[in-house]
Amino acid sequence: MEEEHEKRRTSVTIYGQQYTIVGQENPEQVKKVAELVDRKMRELKSKNPYLDSNKLAVLTAVNIGNDYLSLLKSDKEEKDGD
Amino acid sequence: MEEEHEKRRTSVTIYGQQYTIVGQENPEQVKKVAELVDRKMRELKSKNPYLDSNKLAVLTAVNIGNDYLSLLKSDKEEKDGD
Repeated sequence: MEEEHEKRRTSVTIYGQQYTIVGQENPEQVKKVAELVDRKMRELKSKNPYLDSNKLAVLTAVNIGNDYLSLLKSDKEEKDGD
Repeated sequence: MEEEHEKRRTSVTIYGQQYTIVGQENPEQVKKVAELVDRKMRELKSKNPYLDSNKLAVLTAVNIGNDYLSLLKSDKEEKDGD
């Protein structure tokens, strides 16, 4: 997903800011992802009120990236266990 | 993972900025996640040179969130197919 001219364009609002997400994913999936990012940003902000919005966004990416790599790892372990 | 006083503290550099990541994950995993976020930010920036760093970080979170939800979905479909 990028901010470029490609297939589908979906407008979403994340942390009060509007983004046009361009990519091959269907708008429903894009909206789910945007909701996830928005929710994680608000959770992190409530726990760390002094974080500026840039660090907040980076740490949100770290947070989601952690969930992603953990899931990848458990998938791999499951497969290796077969 | 949060920027707070908890178990383990790992220092990482993401997009030229240092972060102390605090959480229960081991430092190796935290470093992998930081590398993922850093790499995705640079990829996105090279494709969208005019993105400011705040939007860049949010869109990186969206990008990783998309990978995460896609993996969750395919895991679910695999299970449902059993």
